[in-house]
Amino acid sequence: MTEDECRHALARLSLGRLGCARDNQPYVVPIYFAHDGPHLYAFSTPGRKIEWMRLNPLVCLEVDERTSVEDWLSVVVDGRYEELTDTPEFAEARAHALQALQKHATWWGYAAIPGAEWRRKAGPFTPIFYRIRIDRLTGHRATPVKPA
Amino acid sequence: MTEDECRHALARLSLGRLGCARDNQPYVVPIYFAHDGPHLYAFSTPGRKIEWMRLNPLVCLEVDERTSVEDWLSVVVDGRYEELTDTPEFAEARAHALQALQKHATWWGYAAIPGAEWRRKAGPFTPIFYRIRIDRLTGHRATPVKPA
Repeated sequence: MTEDECRHALARLSLGRLGCARDNQPYVVPIYFAHDGPHLYAFSTPGRKIEWMRLNPLVCLEVDERTSVEDWLSVVVDGRYEELTDTPEFAEARAHALQALQKHATWWGYAAIPGAEWRRKAGPFTPIFYRIRIDRLTGHRATPVKPA
Repeated sequence: MTEDECRHALARLSLGRLGCARDNQPYVVPIYFAHDGPHLYAFSTPGRKIEWMRLNPLVCLEVDERTSVEDWLSVVVDGRYEELTDTPEFAEARAHALQALQKHATWWGYAAIPGAEWRRKAGPFTPIFYRIRIDRLTGHRATPVKPA
């Protein structure tokens, strides 16, 4: 896939799997994200993922779409974590993140479903907004083989 | 989720996202796998994922299932890569891997679709069989909130 095709896939899709690493142990979790120009925006409650990305900002986001076993695409983003702290310095970036995330109807769902087991454990909802600066984009696509 | 619930999810599902890491740069790709006891079995053509796991066997497999934004589960496996080389030492393990993988109708699909772009680049098909020894299992589940 060309870089343009990868960007189109990122703009259309909103669910990905984010990988981070600490001491070379990878950790992968599903996230919802919004793509806007050079960044992917997302938010999260505090936890292992945020702790690890604060220590090591190198991340990888994999986004895929599959219609069937023979018809799929997968885009891999290598990037860097940037936390959008609730400070004047990041006020504009946070507003931008919120605007980008609101384009996806599902954006609030994943991290904020009341009653979900992990939310009950996590206590009051304290969203952490962050973005991933896209350093490198690669994509693969498979399409069904046409009979000769 | 309890460890038993996590194992049941791994037995039922066959598509996951595998994270590996080199120099603390994570890399995430979709894979098909089969679960059997203490291991997950999979195969792949040569490439970045295999190269990295040979250098650093620490991996993470994330497997999820979602019916809706409010109804999902996600299981995270921390484990270790073990390559099942085509040698007498691993003959039994390879046969076991093949048997486990054949239970899933889709197992051959992902890595071997003829005509797919990346397969054309990869050249003749040389499958590498491997397994992931499960070191740690965690799972989260969200279910729709019932009205009070």
